[in-house]
Amino acid sequence: MTTLVQEKVRQAHAILQELDIDLWMTFVRETSAGMDPVLPLLLGHDVTWQSAFILTKRGESIAIMGRYDAENAHRSGAYGEVIGYDQSFKEPLLEVLNRLNPGQIALNYSLDDTHADGLGHGLYLLLQTYLAGTPFGDRLLSAEKIISALRGRKTDEEIRRVREAIRVTYEIYDRTFAFVEPGKTEAEIGAYMHHLLDEKGLTTSWERANCPAVNSGHMPAGHAGPTDLVIERGHLVHFDFGLCKDDYCSDIQRVLYLRREDEHEAPEAVRRGFETIVAAIRAAVDAMRPGALGHEVDAVARKVVTDAGYPAYKYATGHQVGRAAHDGGGTLAPLWERYGDTPKMALEIGQIYAVEPGLMVEGYGYMGIEENVLITEDGAIFLGDPQTALIVK
Amino acid sequence: MTTLVQEKVRQAHAILQELDIDLWMTFVRETSAGMDPVLPLLLGHDVTWQSAFILTKRGESIAIMGRYDAENAHRSGAYGEVIGYDQSFKEPLLEVLNRLNPGQIALNYSLDDTHADGLGHGLYLLLQTYLAGTPFGDRLLSAEKIISALRGRKTDEEIRRVREAIRVTYEIYDRTFAFVEPGKTEAEIGAYMHHLLDEKGLTTSWERANCPAVNSGHMPAGHAGPTDLVIERGHLVHFDFGLCKDDYCSDIQRVLYLRREDEHEAPEAVRRGFETIVAAIRAAVDAMRPGALGHEVDAVARKVVTDAGYPAYKYATGHQVGRAAHDGGGTLAPLWERYGDTPKMALEIGQIYAVEPGLMVEGYGYMGIEENVLITEDGAIFLGDPQTALIVK
Repeated sequence: MTTLVQEKVRQAHAILQELDIDLWMTFVRETSAGMDPVLPLLLGHDVTWQSAFILTKRGESIAIMGRYDAENAHRSGAYGEVIGYDQSFKEPLLEVLNRLNPGQIALNYSLDDTHADGLGHGLYLLLQTYLAGTPFGDRLLSAEKIISALRGRKTDEEIRRVREAIRVTYEIYDRTFAFVEPGKTEAEIGAYMHHLLDEKGLTTSWERANCPAVNSGHMPAGHAGPTDLVIERGHLVHFDFGLCKDDYCSDIQRVLYLRREDEHEAPEAVRRGFETIVAAIRAAVDAMRPGALGHEVDAVARKVVTDAGYPAYKYATGHQVGRAAHDGGGTLAPLWERYGDTPKMALEIGQIYAVEPGLMVEGYGYMGIEENVLITEDGAIFLGDPQTALIVK
Repeated sequence: MTTLVQEKVRQAHAILQELDIDLWMTFVRETSAGMDPVLPLLLGHDVTWQSAFILTKRGESIAIMGRYDAENAHRSGAYGEVIGYDQSFKEPLLEVLNRLNPGQIALNYSLDDTHADGLGHGLYLLLQTYLAGTPFGDRLLSAEKIISALRGRKTDEEIRRVREAIRVTYEIYDRTFAFVEPGKTEAEIGAYMHHLLDEKGLTTSWERANCPAVNSGHMPAGHAGPTDLVIERGHLVHFDFGLCKDDYCSDIQRVLYLRREDEHEAPEAVRRGFETIVAAIRAAVDAMRPGALGHEVDAVARKVVTDAGYPAYKYATGHQVGRAAHDGGGTLAPLWERYGDTPKMALEIGQIYAVEPGLMVEGYGYMGIEENVLITEDGAIFLGDPQTALIVK
């Protein structure tokens, strides 16, 4: 059976050919302290000592690792050559580079994409000392295009895992909606969702203290956890939640309305907010064809919200989802400084995005829905049923 | 009540005074993808957008964060000033730097210490673009001395937590020793230890697949997990295991001998190996006074092993333990290239080290013990009873 690591290493070889880059080197150490986000795709284990995972356009795969770590590279079955060293990492590194003599060496640094910026600045300086006196110091470039393609283009197995994470997320949401009632606090509802998650032995998609976010009748404090605020009738209850299963994650927002005793349905203002968000998501998803640029998709969704008279939300319409809730690479973001070049990247087949416009319904609370969609040859498809009706309790 | 984050921020101010460094800036983004190992000490939460945590010698503490993240800095109570931004991080950053006008700006990069190398190379380059045209680009230096002191010098609360992690580790070891018997596989014993850990809702000190390591009758594959090898009488069973509780970890090795039916005690060769390792640990701990250098301690322990006629072990005698099993800073290592300058650092009061010499007893298996010790004014003390008698079953 081909493992995910073997699949991704093979995919990386093809990407190196496509981008015409001779050699890509993931250089890491003591990853229990600071993990290069690429390493799970290339090894699936921590390393203790300085290690290099070298892939070439010609299809070579070489791991240089401390002797006591090397067994994990052997067992991965993804490396044609595993070099275990005792005292010096520099020696086998230079031996391999001299042997391969690559015209370019791509390294894991990126101004804009955290997931492609796994190389510490100190580690980069250390590498420079190793390469002093060789021609290789002048052949370095950023591996961001390689990493963006490798993380973004999900294999069938990766898509299967994200779908499964979404399926379980829906299950937990359904039980949570039944649990919600006036008088309970945000924190109680959050604790109930943790309880459901723990029963399944799964983990949250982002830090547990803030996942889920539960916001009753107010603007979300953003990435901050549920509070002791008691939820009341006449308020929206907004959720932002995701879970990871088999290392792949979901990121889904839902919203429900607790009707007042004298209401049969949600008030006009709430319904209008809900329909606006559903329409914004629909417009974004319709625009999400391979080749579309992220900021174009952002503008489409944002316009639906502002055309309806709401202020524009102060964050990106969407981001990629995969091994992490925020999986790096291209975003569906406006051309703001803080998003760097990520909104200028084109959508590619196999990418999975979370789409999450939002708005405030004054007097009722925050209205935000987030759906996860897959880019296919024919456009984007929802991974799991989108929320198209407001839940009223 | 003072929280750990408040305690560590206060400690950082004192360290800046001691080292006479004007300003220390932890610059991070999207930490769910790649965490700066210092951030848990300064915030205890992930951040999504570019953020800076600025501490000064004069005692200022300023957090600049994306608006939706900023609530976590407010709630920490550790920051006198929290600036939440929407579109541009650069603007508030330059405003703060211009206002403080520091002579030095320490950043989290280090050639040798992974725990002080949390700043990605791409993020460093991005910062350089922000600082272009200001005088600050020429005032950057490594924060490794700050971070090494801050992580290394444990507060009373941190020591209490490590002690507690060790106590539970001993509990799990005791139940495991009772569970071990010939015919069980290494993997079964590993699974049993995971079961005990899961019952308590705790996590392993390093990646779960390799924690515990269980090695029966053979040299450890190093940092690789237990196999389907069946354990037999006449063999040593060696364990390397640790757990984290309340974010602080243990890292303890133990060894037991399964006697043959016709043996009343362990054979001479096994006993000699055991006594050598116990003596090596004792010698190291006796040498571990504040001010001693790491490589001096390493040499003392290593010499006990080689004087007894065994080959020198191919790794460091010890490393610091704290929030991680390998907690960075100074090591008890030989002056080998792969350890960089870390063996040249002096031991300080409040540091916690794992001490772990080892040797191979030919024909019986690997003999390794690992104890966790605290540096005090009067020398090193064991945190928990050391193994001084070979467990024979």
